[in-house]
Amino acid sequence: MPNAQDQQQTGPSDPAAQTQASPRGKAPAEAGAVVISIDAMGGDLGPEATLGGVAIAARETPALRFIVHGPEGVLSPLIAKLSLGDCVDLRHADRAVTMEDKPAQVMRSGKDTSMWSAIESVRDHEADVAVSCGNTGALMAISMIRLRKLKGVNRPAIASFWPSRSPAGWNVMLDMGADVKADAPDLLTYALMGTSYARNALGLTRPRVGLLNVGTEEHKGRAELKEAFEMMTRAQEAGGFEFVGFVEGNHLPADRADVIVTDGFTGNIALKTGEGTAKFVSELLREALTSSLLAKLGALLAMGALKRLRAKVDPRRANGGVFLGLNGTVVKSHGSADATGFAAAISLAARLAQSGFGAKLAARVALALPEGQDGAIQDAPASAESETSQ
Amino acid sequence: MPNAQDQQQTGPSDPAAQTQASPRGKAPAEAGAVVISIDAMGGDLGPEATLGGVAIAARETPALRFIVHGPEGVLSPLIAKLSLGDCVDLRHADRAVTMEDKPAQVMRSGKDTSMWSAIESVRDHEADVAVSCGNTGALMAISMIRLRKLKGVNRPAIASFWPSRSPAGWNVMLDMGADVKADAPDLLTYALMGTSYARNALGLTRPRVGLLNVGTEEHKGRAELKEAFEMMTRAQEAGGFEFVGFVEGNHLPADRADVIVTDGFTGNIALKTGEGTAKFVSELLREALTSSLLAKLGALLAMGALKRLRAKVDPRRANGGVFLGLNGTVVKSHGSADATGFAAAISLAARLAQSGFGAKLAARVALALPEGQDGAIQDAPASAESETSQ
Repeated sequence: MPNAQDQQQTGPSDPAAQTQASPRGKAPAEAGAVVISIDAMGGDLGPEATLGGVAIAARETPALRFIVHGPEGVLSPLIAKLSLGDCVDLRHADRAVTMEDKPAQVMRSGKDTSMWSAIESVRDHEADVAVSCGNTGALMAISMIRLRKLKGVNRPAIASFWPSRSPAGWNVMLDMGADVKADAPDLLTYALMGTSYARNALGLTRPRVGLLNVGTEEHKGRAELKEAFEMMTRAQEAGGFEFVGFVEGNHLPADRADVIVTDGFTGNIALKTGEGTAKFVSELLREALTSSLLAKLGALLAMGALKRLRAKVDPRRANGGVFLGLNGTVVKSHGSADATGFAAAISLAARLAQSGFGAKLAARVALALPEGQDGAIQDAPASAESETSQ
Repeated sequence: MPNAQDQQQTGPSDPAAQTQASPRGKAPAEAGAVVISIDAMGGDLGPEATLGGVAIAARETPALRFIVHGPEGVLSPLIAKLSLGDCVDLRHADRAVTMEDKPAQVMRSGKDTSMWSAIESVRDHEADVAVSCGNTGALMAISMIRLRKLKGVNRPAIASFWPSRSPAGWNVMLDMGADVKADAPDLLTYALMGTSYARNALGLTRPRVGLLNVGTEEHKGRAELKEAFEMMTRAQEAGGFEFVGFVEGNHLPADRADVIVTDGFTGNIALKTGEGTAKFVSELLREALTSSLLAKLGALLAMGALKRLRAKVDPRRANGGVFLGLNGTVVKSHGSADATGFAAAISLAARLAQSGFGAKLAARVALALPEGQDGAIQDAPASAESETSQ
């Protein structure tokens, strides 16, 4: 079970924090609107891509409001050019975290970065959710020290979508690399957080949860996996998920589990292996279809179908790893995201904010706390019941 | 460093074992021919597939000789039908190991199985190498107790080919699942065994070795990986490989490392994730190319190119995981292999036997033993030099 000493709660469900006046000014929105904090810097394609994404998202959902963080001299002209003045509040931050910066450095001396400032807006309850396409390690480190871990969570996790044969078209996988280790109670927490995420992001009432292993037989794998297998079997009823047992690597894109749970080391390797394999096969296909005149003609005729296929596996459609287990929601967009990709990450962030995801996740995780440790556990089933929109 | 107590050597390089008379009769070949021990049972498609593979391999390489293990009543008619009488010696074994059998059970009471009998032929020096498409766990368990671990090897490994952008068209990856754990000295041993395998199976003089991790920066990952990083950096000169440092999941099919080293848990997940992703993308492609009349027509015109693409990624071409680190070579064919796939596994086994792979691997692994622990270390560099055919 997670250790109570590790936990602090200063988030949206903490009444003391809610009544504090924000030290950084008012949010730029009318009451009730969703406010999204944007780290405009740190991506491979610069603020043109992030603000381009804001412009797309603002066009699609005019009610959204944004707090955009970065150097004023760079961002102001872009905001004017994209006519975003009405929905964007600019917060000046001198520096950007680079992809080479080490998380420990950024934690010590990163207060003047756009990333830090973007997380601060969530901490101060000015914004409902933050989006960044910067350095993942630094973003997780800043999020951990500023937002703090949720009560009951020992190791936060990053959850991503995986294109799949499941009815929703996607599976959720976590942890994708927040931590290189996870013990059995961590894996159970991941199952609960993944369940909550699948309910709110994919609309699944009772997601199927699978535990990633080297075989589906119960006797296989490492000791912590056998222990987690027992814990998940016991927790599935109260946790609102169906435990389908061990799953293997080939089940990641299959219609077997909606939520796939693993440690962050394995999850990161699997994610990149899947991406690398898809890229490799796509490149070979492209080469094959340009290898002869006949093949080129065939490709021309099949172009409509091939384009639809491409759209189906377009990674930009599912852009956004979500940090789970903190007092506040943070969406990590891919570092190489263009405006379309960044807009997809904003859209995911907005959907989560609108559904009140943060409070629902907290209630679900509380289900795993030992009885009596926390008063919230009595309320948890009720709020968990209302978690899905279905 | 591996523990000397764990090691026993009774293999081809043990003169005492060589002079013992074989208790199970003579090999069916003239002196000098390569003899391959075949477990005819235990695959998904039965002995028709395995003996069909033997027939293909015998046609391609008439000098090969086979000892085939399984129930005489089933195999004799097949051998007659395929006219294999001249190159096959049949050894009766009552039972087959099934995919459901647990390794521990098979170790206790599997002496009358075709799998056990097939390994026994290698142990008795009747055959140079064994090939089986049966239960991987049981095959590794029998191989471990009958062939014993090579001096200097704490954890044996399974190595497989991975289709890639490297000049050879394949990368070697290990461990694919012999053991769910590996510490830093194990990972160094894998690097040496993978180097030897890449030299003998792919003809690479100085393979590039990469260590699988969640990032390429030196500070990333688990403690044992950082330790293995240091050990490989120091060992690359004497070990005959070029250490390219940490690699990530997306580098598995890339032109970055020829040999990718990881623990068997991660390797197994990565292998199956890659297979699952390739299958998923191929299925989507097939669906796209049959989704409309125009697409079907296009596919028809591009059929030649698409068939060549399919052949390129056909898993049957690279069929065969090799058990490394034992006193004897064992090739594990895919359980669902048909005759073509099983023939590919036999061809790999023959190539390894012809190159004297077993002795060369032993010499290379000896490089990692602490100086003075073993007399063989003085001879090692010389025999390692002659390891590749180039």
